[in-house]
Amino acid sequence: MKFGVKIMPREVILDTQGRAVEQTLKGQSFRLDSCRVGKFVEIDVPAATEAEGRDMVKKMADFVLYNPLIEVYEIQRLG
Amino acid sequence: MKFGVKIMPREVILDTQGRAVEQTLKGQSFRLDSCRVGKFVEIDVPAATEAEGRDMVKKMADFVLYNPLIEVYEIQRLG
Repeated sequence: MKFGVKIMPREVILDTQGRAVEQTLKGQSFRLDSCRVGKFVEIDVPAATEAEGRDMVKKMADFVLYNPLIEVYEIQRLG
Repeated sequence: MKFGVKIMPREVILDTQGRAVEQTLKGQSFRLDSCRVGKFVEIDVPAATEAEGRDMVKKMADFVLYNPLIEVYEIQRLG
């Protein structure tokens, strides 16, 4: 069962990568209000049910995938 | 209007970051079949309709956000 973990910088954190992309795009006359850059981790787990899978992925995310001080994450069920 | 661009390494490409996370998790006795790591870019665009917004974001993605040789991307409408 495949899950995605979307990890984004917290709103209060200066997102330097996002700022850089935003400036590049604006410099090329693209119209945009804001841009933030995060990570996306796809994990395939051997789970019997969606609830079990989510729980496994949540444990992994809490353990190693994100830094709670500067990031927030969200788990999505994929295809 | 907010859109997300999920950018993942192509299947045929060796995903070193994903491999590293996979090994770390397996080394800690987490059960998983595979893991791939990509990027997620959230862009807020001043679009009147979803179609227009998608089109704007697609142009940005094609222009600067991803490398077609090694990555694939997917646009999602966010909240």
